[in-house]
Amino acid sequence: MTDRGDGTITIKGPRLVADLKALARFGQVGTGVNRPVFTPDDVASRHWLLERMQEAGLDAVIDGIGNVYGQTPNVSRSVLIGSHTDSVPNGGWLDGALGVLYGLEIARALIESGAASDAGVDVISFADEEGRFQGTVGSRVFCGEVAPADCADVRSADGTTLAQALEQAGFAGRPLARLDPARHRAYFEAHIEQGPRLEAEAKRIGVVTAIVGIRRARVTFGGQADHAGTTPMDMRRDAGSALIEFGHDVAARFRIVGSPDSVWNFGSANFEPGAANVVPSGAELAIEYRDASRDILDRLEQAIAAAAETVNDAGKVSCRIETVLAIEPTTMDETLGKIIKAAADAHRAAAIWMPSGAGHDAMALGRHLPTAMLFIPSIGGRSHDIAEDTDEADIVLGAEVLAEAVARLCQLWTHKDTRPIASGLDD
Amino acid sequence: MTDRGDGTITIKGPRLVADLKALARFGQVGTGVNRPVFTPDDVASRHWLLERMQEAGLDAVIDGIGNVYGQTPNVSRSVLIGSHTDSVPNGGWLDGALGVLYGLEIARALIESGAASDAGVDVISFADEEGRFQGTVGSRVFCGEVAPADCADVRSADGTTLAQALEQAGFAGRPLARLDPARHRAYFEAHIEQGPRLEAEAKRIGVVTAIVGIRRARVTFGGQADHAGTTPMDMRRDAGSALIEFGHDVAARFRIVGSPDSVWNFGSANFEPGAANVVPSGAELAIEYRDASRDILDRLEQAIAAAAETVNDAGKVSCRIETVLAIEPTTMDETLGKIIKAAADAHRAAAIWMPSGAGHDAMALGRHLPTAMLFIPSIGGRSHDIAEDTDEADIVLGAEVLAEAVARLCQLWTHKDTRPIASGLDD
Repeated sequence: MTDRGDGTITIKGPRLVADLKALARFGQVGTGVNRPVFTPDDVASRHWLLERMQEAGLDAVIDGIGNVYGQTPNVSRSVLIGSHTDSVPNGGWLDGALGVLYGLEIARALIESGAASDAGVDVISFADEEGRFQGTVGSRVFCGEVAPADCADVRSADGTTLAQALEQAGFAGRPLARLDPARHRAYFEAHIEQGPRLEAEAKRIGVVTAIVGIRRARVTFGGQADHAGTTPMDMRRDAGSALIEFGHDVAARFRIVGSPDSVWNFGSANFEPGAANVVPSGAELAIEYRDASRDILDRLEQAIAAAAETVNDAGKVSCRIETVLAIEPTTMDETLGKIIKAAADAHRAAAIWMPSGAGHDAMALGRHLPTAMLFIPSIGGRSHDIAEDTDEADIVLGAEVLAEAVARLCQLWTHKDTRPIASGLDD
Repeated sequence: MTDRGDGTITIKGPRLVADLKALARFGQVGTGVNRPVFTPDDVASRHWLLERMQEAGLDAVIDGIGNVYGQTPNVSRSVLIGSHTDSVPNGGWLDGALGVLYGLEIARALIESGAASDAGVDVISFADEEGRFQGTVGSRVFCGEVAPADCADVRSADGTTLAQALEQAGFAGRPLARLDPARHRAYFEAHIEQGPRLEAEAKRIGVVTAIVGIRRARVTFGGQADHAGTTPMDMRRDAGSALIEFGHDVAARFRIVGSPDSVWNFGSANFEPGAANVVPSGAELAIEYRDASRDILDRLEQAIAAAAETVNDAGKVSCRIETVLAIEPTTMDETLGKIIKAAADAHRAAAIWMPSGAGHDAMALGRHLPTAMLFIPSIGGRSHDIAEDTDEADIVLGAEVLAEAVARLCQLWTHKDTRPIASGLDD
C-alpha cells in the first residue's frame, strides 16, 4: 500500500508513549515538567534514560558533560538520533524529550528486528540545551567545539557553576562521548514545532529547511528630561516618542525587506525616568529578528541602521544600536530532508518544508555532519509552558515517519547507493 | 518717560533678591533647595517668612494647614499676592518662592510709601503646592474647597499622614486663614516659567492666558505570549507592536486635532514579560496631554479613543483606556492680564500672552476670584531641579512689573473706575 523500503523499522507506538510519560514523571509539574539540567530530577531522569538504553541493548554511558549516549553494538556506521531531556523551568513534557525517545524507540526497534546490518542507530540526550548554564553546551562539547573546562565557571541564575553542578551530579571528570565522523554519518532530531503553523495548516510533519539565524539589538535613545507641561512640542528632545516612531519605521522597513518567513519581535521597551509628566530623557528597545537566510538577516540589520540614521539625522534624540546576539542560520541537509519528506509521503502524513524558528542542538551537529530535523504539531503552538502538548496520534506518526526515514537511509548504505534514495525527491 | 500710574509702588530689587537668597538657605542643596512641605527646613522657613511679614508691617499668621498669611492692616480691600515656598525634593530656589517674596516686597513697599488708601496688599504662601501629601491643598483649604480634616489621612511617600505632619510642625488645630470675597478682590501669582519659551523668544514677561487642563490616560494592551522565533508574524497577538503602532497613530492624530499650544507626553511604556524572545503578552502606555481649552482636550481624548478602536477592530490585541487624571483648564481674568501687559509695556519689558503648561495655586484661586499670573524666564527652561535659575535682572523686572500692575489696580479702585484701566488693553 505504501512505498516503504524493504527493511522497515517497526516502532511500537504505545511503548514510545509510555516511555514519554515515564520520563515526564521526573520533575512533574501538573501537565509539564520542571527539569532544568543537573537539578536532582534531571539527574535522576538521566539515570533512568541510561537504564532504558541499556535495556534496549545499547552500549550506554553518561559522559563528562552529562550527555546520555547509547550506541548500537557491532556496527561500523550509524544514524545518530537525539535531542535533549532537560527543560526550561516549568516547561513542557515533550520539548526535547520527544526527539531523544524517538531515538531510543527506533534503536530498540531496529535491534529487535534482528536485521543483520553494518549500520545502526545511536541515541543521545544532550545536556543543557535550554541554557541553565549555557544553551546547547552538551551538543557543542559532543562536536568538540568547546570543552567542559571552557565553561566550568559559567553560573546559573542561582549562582551555581557548571563545574559544581557536574560534580554534584557525579558526572565531573568522566570521559566524553564524542562525534566520530567515521561512525556518525547523519544526525536526525525530531522535535515539537513549538509554533502554530503545522496545526494552522493541518499538516502533521514539518521537514526543516534550516534553523534560522537570530540577531538581537539593543537600541538606546538619548534625549533630555523636560517638564511635559511647560516645554513646547518643538523644543523637546523626547526619547520616548523617538522610540515609538523608530519602532513604527523599523516594522515598515522589515515588511518590505524581510522574507515571508522572517520574524521579528520588540520584546521590551523602557522609558526613563518613566513619569507621566516628564518628557523621557532616555529609552531602550530590544529587537530580535530571525531568518533562515544570512542575506535577509543582513538586510534587516541594514533596515534598523537606516531607521536609526533617520532619528540621528533629525538632530534631537540620539539613537545607538548595539548587537547583543548574532547566531548564524544552519542549513539542514537537503538529501536527508528529502528522505524524511518521502517517508512522510509513504505514511500519507501531510508534510511541509519549513524553517525552524527556534534554536536546537541540530545547530551544532549541522556544522559537522549531515543533519535534518522533523517537526510534529504543537497544540495551540504552545511551548516552554506546562500547557505544551501534542496529540498522541501525531507523536506516534512522527516516530513512524522518522523510523521510515532511518530505514531508507540505512538501506541506502546497505545497497551501496545503487538505488534511488527515495521517492518524492523532487518535492 | 513711561505711562505709569500716579501711585507707583517702588520695590527695592536688592532687598527682594536678598530675601530670596535668605529663603534659599532653608534646605539648601547646592544651587537648589530640598524643602518638601512640613520637613524641618520647610517649617523653619515658614517661621522665617512669618517674621519677615511681621517686620514689613503685615498682620501675619501661620494657619491650621500651614499657610503663611499676612494682611495689610487698616484696609477694607486688597490684592492678594502669593504662591508657595515648599519645593519638590531637590528642587529649585525660585519655584514658588518667587511669587511669595514678590508679594512680600510689594506689600512692604506699599506700606513704606505711606500712601493713605483703603486698598492694600495681602501676601500668602500656600502649603504643599508640590504635593508631598496632596498638591495645592493649601490653596484649596484657603478657598474653602476642602477642610484639613478631609485630607488628614493622606500619606506622603514616607508613610507620614498630613495630620501627623501638621501636628509635628505645631500647626494642627490652628484657625484657618480663609478667602474673604469682600476683602480679596484679585489674586496675582508670579512664577518662573519652568519652560524654555520666554528665553527662546527673547521675552521677559509672560502674561498667562490660562492654566492648561491636564488629562492622563493609562492605555493597556492585551495580547498573548508566544515564542518569538516559532510564531509566524500573522499569527501573533503582539501587545508590544500594538503599543508602538498605537503611539504612532495617536501622535499623528494629535498633530491634526491639537492646538498650536497643545502638548502631550508618552511618559512611560512597559512590555510584559519583557524578554527578547517572547512576543509581549501585555503592554502599558502612559499618555498625558494638556491644553488651555476644554474643547481641544475633548478632541485629543477622542483621538485616543479612535486609535484604540483601530487596535480593537483589528481583533488581535485588546486596547483599554483608563482616565487616571482629569484637571480642567483655568482661564485667567482677562482684565487683570491686560493690566499686567500694560505694566510690562510701561516698563519696556517685552511680554507675550501664553498658557501655563504647569499647575499652580492660581487654579484654586481662579475658581473663586479674578486671578492672573505673570511668568518670568527660566534659564534653559530648567525647573524641578537644583539647576533651576533666572537672571537677577529678570527677577527684579518681574517684581517691578507686578508692582506696577498692583498700583494700577489699586488706583482703579481709588478712582472709582472713572479712568481707563490701562493702556494697551487691545493687545
